[in-house]
Amino acid sequence: MPPFEIAVLTTGDELLSGDLADTNTGVIAEILGRQGYRLRCSLSVPDKEKEIEAALRYLSAHAQAVIVTGGLGSTVDDLTARAAARALGRSLVINEEALEMIKNWFAQRNRTMEPNNERQALLPQHAIPLPNSLGTAPGFWIKERDCELFFLPGVPNEMQAMFAETVLPLLQSRHPGSGPRRQRSYKFFGLPEPKIDQLIPYQQFPAGIEVAFALEYPLVVVKLKVGGEGAEFRLDQAEALLLKDLGEQLVARDGETPEGNLGQLLTSAGLTLALAESCTGGLIASLLTSQPGASRFLERGAVTYADSAKLDWLQVPLPIIRQHGAVSEPCAKAMAEGLLRVANTDLALSVTGIAGPDGGTQEKPVGTVFIALASKEGTHVKAYRFNGDRQKVQRMTAFMALEWLRRFACSHLRG
Amino acid sequence: MPPFEIAVLTTGDELLSGDLADTNTGVIAEILGRQGYRLRCSLSVPDKEKEIEAALRYLSAHAQAVIVTGGLGSTVDDLTARAAARALGRSLVINEEALEMIKNWFAQRNRTMEPNNERQALLPQHAIPLPNSLGTAPGFWIKERDCELFFLPGVPNEMQAMFAETVLPLLQSRHPGSGPRRQRSYKFFGLPEPKIDQLIPYQQFPAGIEVAFALEYPLVVVKLKVGGEGAEFRLDQAEALLLKDLGEQLVARDGETPEGNLGQLLTSAGLTLALAESCTGGLIASLLTSQPGASRFLERGAVTYADSAKLDWLQVPLPIIRQHGAVSEPCAKAMAEGLLRVANTDLALSVTGIAGPDGGTQEKPVGTVFIALASKEGTHVKAYRFNGDRQKVQRMTAFMALEWLRRFACSHLRG
Repeated sequence: MPPFEIAVLTTGDELLSGDLADTNTGVIAEILGRQGYRLRCSLSVPDKEKEIEAALRYLSAHAQAVIVTGGLGSTVDDLTARAAARALGRSLVINEEALEMIKNWFAQRNRTMEPNNERQALLPQHAIPLPNSLGTAPGFWIKERDCELFFLPGVPNEMQAMFAETVLPLLQSRHPGSGPRRQRSYKFFGLPEPKIDQLIPYQQFPAGIEVAFALEYPLVVVKLKVGGEGAEFRLDQAEALLLKDLGEQLVARDGETPEGNLGQLLTSAGLTLALAESCTGGLIASLLTSQPGASRFLERGAVTYADSAKLDWLQVPLPIIRQHGAVSEPCAKAMAEGLLRVANTDLALSVTGIAGPDGGTQEKPVGTVFIALASKEGTHVKAYRFNGDRQKVQRMTAFMALEWLRRFACSHLRG
Repeated sequence: MPPFEIAVLTTGDELLSGDLADTNTGVIAEILGRQGYRLRCSLSVPDKEKEIEAALRYLSAHAQAVIVTGGLGSTVDDLTARAAARALGRSLVINEEALEMIKNWFAQRNRTMEPNNERQALLPQHAIPLPNSLGTAPGFWIKERDCELFFLPGVPNEMQAMFAETVLPLLQSRHPGSGPRRQRSYKFFGLPEPKIDQLIPYQQFPAGIEVAFALEYPLVVVKLKVGGEGAEFRLDQAEALLLKDLGEQLVARDGETPEGNLGQLLTSAGLTLALAESCTGGLIASLLTSQPGASRFLERGAVTYADSAKLDWLQVPLPIIRQHGAVSEPCAKAMAEGLLRVANTDLALSVTGIAGPDGGTQEKPVGTVFIALASKEGTHVKAYRFNGDRQKVQRMTAFMALEWLRRFACSHLRG
């Protein structure tokens, strides 16, 4: 049996004007991929009846299922049902079941149904309406000889809920795919993508393991996917091989973030933290506090742009700034050590550097960054030279600082 | 003459697996839109010769120009030239001019050309190679009866450079569009999209003005577009009408950000600033310091999670925290006033609140936020209740704080 082929059609002028990126295709592709289906193609057309009709003719001739999003609303721009009727040679009729769904939607919310909303019950003959719990527009489903067409609203949360709750189960009951595919993702910090690619032992992986990359600067995300019998076992094997050389660089897995993991790590290690940021300007604190529960380990943070703040809040001795400058190893060290005393935490981390675009010198070009970490055991301090624009230097510095903290907390927990 | 119709075809397995979002279509759509062209449709297919061939047949029959990206590399997955030859019924031949381009690319970099790279000169007969200054793969151009096809690499920066430098001028010389379209964008803060939509005087706009929306939470972006004679004049008129009711909410225009504008405003007003952040955890400082030149106005910032930091760095009196709690109007006021004294700046802004998901009470639910702004003229403080998850509460709080500062700086400059 040839593979079951699915196509996606997204409709909307904004998708073809560069104003809005289509996210529906990616969401559908991701969900289908996890269930062992593959997309044959995806097509986007403007809100024009003739374009939608032509696209439906092409796709229904080339795929066994077509998922269509958009154009089911109540305005004159919403032309998908009409285009579908024409493409399939059916009349457009009031679908009583769909009308009932719309009436109920308004009744349950004590809202008045506008005459416009009745248009949303005009569907191609013999279409089967699909309930929409989040909006007024029902979807619909049409079986046409060798192809089934599913029509969903374009609003992402409505589309996603209906696809997952209704369309996917229908597809699965009628056309079992190759079965759910298992997927795991790994976020690495500290190596560029080509280097990570080199370190992946592709040849040793069990049969059927697929590898995909994504980039969340400065993290590199590697995904392993596999379907069929023993998928979890094969993923276990592949994971062990992947992490043999790359385990040290692993900072997060599926659904995790390095900052979230670090928060949990510090919390379980019972370590408290204070931050002193110069060139990152609060980015490290902001990353850590974007996660719930940050108050369990983060005592305080300082964004010390002016020297006065370094002298005052961090008790950096003035001669150090005078002699070495605020962007220097001695200053980074003094910031962390001063902060440790002031905040009375287990750890105090400081960063000072030149994020650019201005402020670089021959001796200390843009990208020069000093990181220091003070604890009762002493202070580590190191100079870096990062590449890229201001935003890249700031992000790289922040994630390097998180990495210092992760390593400290790990070794603290180990012993 | 019917409008000149352009289609985009993007190729790549990763576009249909949900692993990578297609950005090439959006970039091409944006550039074409600014030049007065419209995309008729965009299609994505996997790296399969038959799929690419079918897509090329369909698109070349439905559009007068087709822009294809991807599949021009040197590996076995790169099948676009072969698929194009089949779709157009031409043979695949070594294109001497393309081969020369590839050889030169390696020679100029003193690198050795691999035998694989020769494959990149295998093009459909009579194709005209297009130079690629950033990579080894030349693009190519095929004139086929009623359609012209342009083939570009999928790597975004190579694609974008070749599209702008070569393809667009070719299109323009052969098929003048409706002429460049002018576009302006306006970022508004403080009103939701439906409310802004209601306040736009569509009926009064000059002929041909198009309006598009985008959302950069919590900002709403409105774009005005128009082509033809007197475009700038009509945009001036539309802008005046748009800003009559919405001028107060305007925080940034094309290419600007509210945080960047605020920085310039504070700098020209000669105002210095200190920040004390609790629930935003450094986000406000991070936004302001993501812009170059922040050291001109930002003296320091504090992320005061623990009470000890509020007492110590901000000199908040302990009885205030004991009596009212750290999330309270008196505490916000004391934070800002204490910070003003400590940092000796013109302005001191503080935020304290409950970003969630935990920590809410009946009296102070999640989303409760107090903002205070202290200056020599006195202290303003106000309570808010924002909706949404932790990230939304944090972002809304940060942008509201920026808004307070913008209004202060504006009235300071005015008077």
